[in-house]
Amino acid sequence: MHETLEDYEEDAGRMLDELYAIGAQSDGGTYRSLYDPSWVGARELIKGWMVERGLQVRVDPVGNIIGRLQGTTDAPIVATGSHMDTVRNGGRLDGAYGVVGSILAVGSLRRKLGKPARTLEVIVLCEEEGSRFTNHYWGSRSIVGQTTQLEAEESLDKAGVSLAGAMQELGLDPRNISSATRNDIGYFVELHVEQGGILEDEGLDLALVTAITGITRWDVTVTGEANHAGTTPMNLRRDALAGVAQMIADVENAAINAGPPAVATVGRLSVTPDQINVVPGQVRFTVELRTPDRNQQLATQSVIEQSLAATAAKRDLEIELKLQHDHEPVLMHAEVMNAIKTTLDSGGVPYRLLSSGAGHDTQIFSQIAKVGMIFTSSKAGISHSPLEDTDPRALGEGVAVLAGTLLKLAYRS
Amino acid sequence: MHETLEDYEEDAGRMLDELYAIGAQSDGGTYRSLYDPSWVGARELIKGWMVERGLQVRVDPVGNIIGRLQGTTDAPIVATGSHMDTVRNGGRLDGAYGVVGSILAVGSLRRKLGKPARTLEVIVLCEEEGSRFTNHYWGSRSIVGQTTQLEAEESLDKAGVSLAGAMQELGLDPRNISSATRNDIGYFVELHVEQGGILEDEGLDLALVTAITGITRWDVTVTGEANHAGTTPMNLRRDALAGVAQMIADVENAAINAGPPAVATVGRLSVTPDQINVVPGQVRFTVELRTPDRNQQLATQSVIEQSLAATAAKRDLEIELKLQHDHEPVLMHAEVMNAIKTTLDSGGVPYRLLSSGAGHDTQIFSQIAKVGMIFTSSKAGISHSPLEDTDPRALGEGVAVLAGTLLKLAYRS
Repeated sequence: MHETLEDYEEDAGRMLDELYAIGAQSDGGTYRSLYDPSWVGARELIKGWMVERGLQVRVDPVGNIIGRLQGTTDAPIVATGSHMDTVRNGGRLDGAYGVVGSILAVGSLRRKLGKPARTLEVIVLCEEEGSRFTNHYWGSRSIVGQTTQLEAEESLDKAGVSLAGAMQELGLDPRNISSATRNDIGYFVELHVEQGGILEDEGLDLALVTAITGITRWDVTVTGEANHAGTTPMNLRRDALAGVAQMIADVENAAINAGPPAVATVGRLSVTPDQINVVPGQVRFTVELRTPDRNQQLATQSVIEQSLAATAAKRDLEIELKLQHDHEPVLMHAEVMNAIKTTLDSGGVPYRLLSSGAGHDTQIFSQIAKVGMIFTSSKAGISHSPLEDTDPRALGEGVAVLAGTLLKLAYRS
Repeated sequence: MHETLEDYEEDAGRMLDELYAIGAQSDGGTYRSLYDPSWVGARELIKGWMVERGLQVRVDPVGNIIGRLQGTTDAPIVATGSHMDTVRNGGRLDGAYGVVGSILAVGSLRRKLGKPARTLEVIVLCEEEGSRFTNHYWGSRSIVGQTTQLEAEESLDKAGVSLAGAMQELGLDPRNISSATRNDIGYFVELHVEQGGILEDEGLDLALVTAITGITRWDVTVTGEANHAGTTPMNLRRDALAGVAQMIADVENAAINAGPPAVATVGRLSVTPDQINVVPGQVRFTVELRTPDRNQQLATQSVIEQSLAATAAKRDLEIELKLQHDHEPVLMHAEVMNAIKTTLDSGGVPYRLLSSGAGHDTQIFSQIAKVGMIFTSSKAGISHSPLEDTDPRALGEGVAVLAGTLLKLAYRS
């Protein structure tokens, strides 16, 4: 597909700019949240792009936009796509790049090769980030049959509007949610930016994704004794924050000792009573562990739990560790990975294998389809920020690899 | 004064109970904040106690209550007292014990010995804690001439009432603040609970205070880079919280290495953006160092500042250290300390020398008078809490030592 690399680069850049302008925020970046006016504007733009490229367009019962290129057989279809929503003050590429890339790739295949053997679909997912409601993966979960009318009625945004109510305002009927379910999808391929700094660090544009990380999260409460910070000698203190400082090091060391790509993070922390002159009596914090290796995930969970308990015991602190969730890693399917690999190898662009440290709609599709992902590098590893950026050449290369992969999966039945 | 030890114990207990009942809070403890109704109630109770014991009572222009026992000479007077206000949900003893103890001691001296050579005054200070306005030591600072009408007009409580306005509601004229200034006070002796656990830890009831701690406070801001907690490998992170965890250990180690009674505390801390799945980009926290040794204070300041800077450099973090204040220790006066020591030695109750880790009105009086303090033990070292408690025998012993000290200072001119 090399003859179109510059076209991909140019078209992708222009389309990403158009999409980024919808929902632009005065304090930087964009915000397209589920079912809001900017989201509707983006939907109309995307539908237009699909129609221009000869795809049959429809919007499913929850608002996913589907552009279809009918194939010559009834074999399970090949789908590609990403999400159209963004986080608050989001960037130009997260989700949007996979949306634009999918439309360009399928459009190009249709123009050059006509009808595929397997039907090709671009699926633009209506909600992945969960930044209005907390319903992550709402679009893809609806397609795999994991959402209900009840969920839509019980989910409220900050203004008190329910997800179901927001659907109705757009003319979508929450009673039809279950009819978004699909059983005809054989493959799902997603093109996405890395959102991390590994590719840039190694001077690479592209990665073949091997797995999506497993995630373990805990809420931790450490209780000591609040005391006067002037009159309580160091050896009579039960300082919850001093203990937690050691626990933060324990968490960091657990990930470093597990080795890349395992990561662990203490992201939230609050101190009680939070006074300059009072020894902290209680600290609450979160711990998150991510690794694509389930055995390592379980082993590192134990290391973290035991080291935190040991640090608490050493300092006479009480500790409560609440496991909030323990999501297993999702492996990419060998058949899709091979189609991507063959395309990458023939393209001559150097790449590496990489696991995804972030979650993606692809992990939801893995429940019903053979899945795969292609990553392009992120400048400075920055994502979920107006500073999100990728070299235009890499953007073009990613679209070309997606097109090559879809060709292999859909045209050679 | 041994013949009255049981009387002191009994009277002090009863008076403390009466005072504690004024301003009692439904959620525990008491709250007598400056110029509020409970404060007025306490004032009337205290004035009555003074009148009963034959003291001439007046209220000075800012609301300090003064009970005077006229001496036979014009020599600079001997004053004793403590503060009548409390923190929110405060305990039964902080401030109140010194108020009650002073009235009992001076009343007892008058009854047994009549007129002193030097005039004796019980000064009940109107505001030390600063828990309604932030004007710590308002009463004692007015006596040494450190307050102004402007300060009273500019200080607002949470309801927006100015300190000056609150004075006017009680019939106190803010234009007269400067006339609270005194130049006739030769000595000030304060009886107080330790508010720490050292005496109890050593099985002692009493301490002779040698100094009031120096206090150094910093606001610290550490800036790294906020990043996706899934896609940013450990070796590419600039995690502000992981760095601050090491800094908290640095602060703790600086105090431990300086040795008792030095203490250092990280009491406040906040994380940005404080998200479970984002590597912390910025952390703000406070550091407080206390030691009664000025040389150690300066040396430990350097240790803390250098170790924090080194930790920041090691982790490629930016650090901003803002020195908020650097208060030198205040030494007790040798003449007053000797009067206390002689009384203690003759009383036969074991005691130790101790520096105060908390601030007291005595440090303000040190600017115009020779000062000293006597501590009684605090159960479990607890203060600023409804759980504040001291053995009744120790309370009586403290009053007896105060009476003996005042006898030496006021009756032997």
